[in-house]
Amino acid sequence: MTLKLYGFVHSTCTRRVRTALAEKGLDVEIVPVDLAKGEQKTSSYLNDLQPFGKVPVLQDTETGIQIYESRAITQYIATKYRGQGTDLAPPESDLKAFAYYQQALSIEQSYFDPLASQIAYEKVFKARKGHGETDEARVQSLFSQLELTLEGYERVLSKQPYLAGQQLTLADLAHLPYGAFIEPFGFTELVSKFPHVQKWWEGLKARESWKKVTA
Amino acid sequence: MTLKLYGFVHSTCTRRVRTALAEKGLDVEIVPVDLAKGEQKTSSYLNDLQPFGKVPVLQDTETGIQIYESRAITQYIATKYRGQGTDLAPPESDLKAFAYYQQALSIEQSYFDPLASQIAYEKVFKARKGHGETDEARVQSLFSQLELTLEGYERVLSKQPYLAGQQLTLADLAHLPYGAFIEPFGFTELVSKFPHVQKWWEGLKARESWKKVTA
Repeated sequence: MTLKLYGFVHSTCTRRVRTALAEKGLDVEIVPVDLAKGEQKTSSYLNDLQPFGKVPVLQDTETGIQIYESRAITQYIATKYRGQGTDLAPPESDLKAFAYYQQALSIEQSYFDPLASQIAYEKVFKARKGHGETDEARVQSLFSQLELTLEGYERVLSKQPYLAGQQLTLADLAHLPYGAFIEPFGFTELVSKFPHVQKWWEGLKARESWKKVTA
Repeated sequence: MTLKLYGFVHSTCTRRVRTALAEKGLDVEIVPVDLAKGEQKTSSYLNDLQPFGKVPVLQDTETGIQIYESRAITQYIATKYRGQGTDLAPPESDLKAFAYYQQALSIEQSYFDPLASQIAYEKVFKARKGHGETDEARVQSLFSQLELTLEGYERVLSKQPYLAGQQLTLADLAHLPYGAFIEPFGFTELVSKFPHVQKWWEGLKARESWKKVTA
């Protein structure tokens, strides 16, 4: 197979990449990295695959390109396979669409992800890593910040159906793994306060790509 | 002037944009937003300029494009003015360079920025916003995480002079505002533990663009 993904099939960031691949109608070979055994922290992994000890990493045997960071991987896929499956990123030649797309990407990565991933850490990964119990006061504080953030999302999505404008892009899809992960801890309830956010969120979860990845 | 930047001349994110503009040899009109008075939280600002109540926002009178998020703004500038001043982003047609550039952008935004900006918050902005005193234990924890992160940077920069490869890009420059901000709180000492990181960091700070922005 052309594309090999080092990762863990259920991990949030691996799912982010798999969703983009599914939108493109592309298959990938998953090369399992045993996170529980710490395979991502071995010196060969750090030197040859990912210098920060994280998953996933994509290898493209056709181009010889090896790349990490889930968002960077999905950008690479959207660019290499433009015109196949769902178009997930406007070309840079369309300067206006490109500008709003960059803005949308940054909204997810700077405003949403740090809060959602910290909630996921407090509620699940902290205990799993042996870092102690959930700090519920911190979870509350993170959800309060997330509510303020979703007020911004509501302003954006009351004017347009997707974060970058009229078309779905990677910026929308990037929310799925952590958003779905924190749904049972209060995200579902929070989203229900914002009608445009809720419609957008339900639409994302209903996509065939996400259903395939979470099946 | 073609470019108008709503922001505060000394703010970190405004400086990020001004550095990129300086590399391109572009001037910008700064339209001051009085953060102390909360001008960025007024309903007209939220509805017309930035739905999350943050600075900066760029208006380009030539294209009619208005865009927020400092990293998105710098991407826009690098793309619109490609071929003028320093080249700060490889074109997407160079798929390999583009892939490594995306990877480098994500390293800064996901690994470096959340730690550096939280240290800046604890040490300076928390008190300024009336949120209480610095939590020194939290600062220590953030610096410990930053040290692990810089170990990853050292692995990358021992093989190549810049995060995306042989050429400086926006991904490198993006570190300057928060990196410089937290230097007196322990960042200088931390960087000195990693020879390749230190060389890279000193090189960034010595750029004429940064000197101009911080003059």
